[in-house]
Amino acid sequence: MAIGEFELIRRFFTKQAVKQASTVLGVGDDCALLRVEERQDLAVTADTLVEGVHFLPDVDPESLGHKVLAVNLSDLAAMGAEPRWVTLALTLPHPERAWLQSFARGFFALAERHGVELVGGDTTRGPLTITVQALGLAPREHALRRSGARPGDLVYLTGELGTAGLGLKIRQGSTDIDDPTAVVRLEKPEPRIDAGIRLRGLASSCIDVSDGLAADLGHILEASGVGATIEWDRLPLTDGISRYIVETGDWRMPLSAGDDYELCFTVPPANRDALEQRLAAGDCPFALIGRIESQAGLRLLRDGWSIEFSQDGYQHFTRD
Amino acid sequence: MAIGEFELIRRFFTKQAVKQASTVLGVGDDCALLRVEERQDLAVTADTLVEGVHFLPDVDPESLGHKVLAVNLSDLAAMGAEPRWVTLALTLPHPERAWLQSFARGFFALAERHGVELVGGDTTRGPLTITVQALGLAPREHALRRSGARPGDLVYLTGELGTAGLGLKIRQGSTDIDDPTAVVRLEKPEPRIDAGIRLRGLASSCIDVSDGLAADLGHILEASGVGATIEWDRLPLTDGISRYIVETGDWRMPLSAGDDYELCFTVPPANRDALEQRLAAGDCPFALIGRIESQAGLRLLRDGWSIEFSQDGYQHFTRD
Repeated sequence: MAIGEFELIRRFFTKQAVKQASTVLGVGDDCALLRVEERQDLAVTADTLVEGVHFLPDVDPESLGHKVLAVNLSDLAAMGAEPRWVTLALTLPHPERAWLQSFARGFFALAERHGVELVGGDTTRGPLTITVQALGLAPREHALRRSGARPGDLVYLTGELGTAGLGLKIRQGSTDIDDPTAVVRLEKPEPRIDAGIRLRGLASSCIDVSDGLAADLGHILEASGVGATIEWDRLPLTDGISRYIVETGDWRMPLSAGDDYELCFTVPPANRDALEQRLAAGDCPFALIGRIESQAGLRLLRDGWSIEFSQDGYQHFTRD
Repeated sequence: MAIGEFELIRRFFTKQAVKQASTVLGVGDDCALLRVEERQDLAVTADTLVEGVHFLPDVDPESLGHKVLAVNLSDLAAMGAEPRWVTLALTLPHPERAWLQSFARGFFALAERHGVELVGGDTTRGPLTITVQALGLAPREHALRRSGARPGDLVYLTGELGTAGLGLKIRQGSTDIDDPTAVVRLEKPEPRIDAGIRLRGLASSCIDVSDGLAADLGHILEASGVGATIEWDRLPLTDGISRYIVETGDWRMPLSAGDDYELCFTVPPANRDALEQRLAAGDCPFALIGRIESQAGLRLLRDGWSIEFSQDGYQHFTRD
């Protein structure tokens, strides 16, 4: 890439408002140098978005800048970690001023809201591919893992289910339901950082819903060696989703659609009141949707039927 | 990507020998959890290699696996940091068993030699693009920055100059010089981790030579607000490079060719003896090549001429 192009890119990524006190050395040397406070562990995650796979070529670059950061912050949220730093590896065919400006605006608007500092990365020429690595801190022994769910624990979900899935169907033109908030949820998901931090010390396990509730809760069940039953009537569905289900009969969509970036977590019954109080003091809605059981597998109670989800997506129906 | 494909990939990247004691939680949750020892700072870097830009489509995947890790470890070496953890974001068009096996072999062979643990990442479908983020530790206040060079400091270089550049010309078929070690240097560069650690507390600045000595030493000069003169007769050139220069007259190549991943560093005269003793105890060759001066700019003394390198690559000749 020519010097001028690099300069263009640098200009858009060096004007950030956030400076972490714990950043010893930021962008501009061979590495960034970061200081981790005592009694904290470092949480690390990396996610890639690829044009044509994770987003369409005509995606709004501001939404893309937001989303590539959001999906990584969501992984930190699922650990109960507080985001601190990110690196950005941006591969793009040809740097265009307007595109970069818009991408950076979306990226930094979200970064600023969560006090995240960009401390390094790489800019290369090639097919549009974006990898963000996010670094956060969690108090030792208080990070939220997938493996801590125990029989009897309650299963909760933040926000609503399947909203991003409906947004995708709207974007694809495969439904005529008008629900602008679903499209916003798809394109500019809000990582549940505050909720994740509130779960520390109370939740027994946590994951973010990126691949669909059935799949992601399935990861908790597998890591914890347990099963669960969730109840259809408890699932937090928006009016838009309810209308979609009435119109299409496709009630499985909210359980299988990804990209919601809500937190699914489990709580021992003894912690229930404390958890609900602590979450209610935040601004994130949440719902109790089911219970962990010793019997392996994920079951859904719906209209008096127990529907078994199996790992390969095949669903096995049994009368309750 | 289908489950089967993910499983295939997972198989190649979960069989690693290195387990860091300071890894609280490795691959398999929303984030890895890492413990940074007291009095250490965390060094972070990320670099991307793109097919058709940084490597040819027919590259040996084992070399590619080595190189994408090596270029990142080299950034840690340039900070005097000890590598600990990496994440790997691998975007590839279609996972092929033989390719993945070979890529993983090159990646993990280098990782094992430096005690580096893979703790996370992402695998996505798309044009072949690889981003590694490397995390290392350096004692507080002892990381090697670009900005510490002062007039009078001596300029050193590890290894040899331009070897990878010659390897590229051999690979491209634009020279008939036979120098297999130059090709190895291009395709499997060795990050100078041990040398970087030996420089702690003695070197005043350091950078790794990825874009060519003139450009990278230029970064030190700019960050430090100084200039330098290097002497042609002191430059460590292999027989292959010397023959290349005799045959082509292109003596600038070793100064401008990138991909050597040697360390260029500066040392206050008072530390010279200690530095040379400490480096000599390692297995990495090194050479004194010049001196830092207060006058801005980079000059080369050659055959009685002083040749000025300017930032845009234009060279300005003056009689010494």
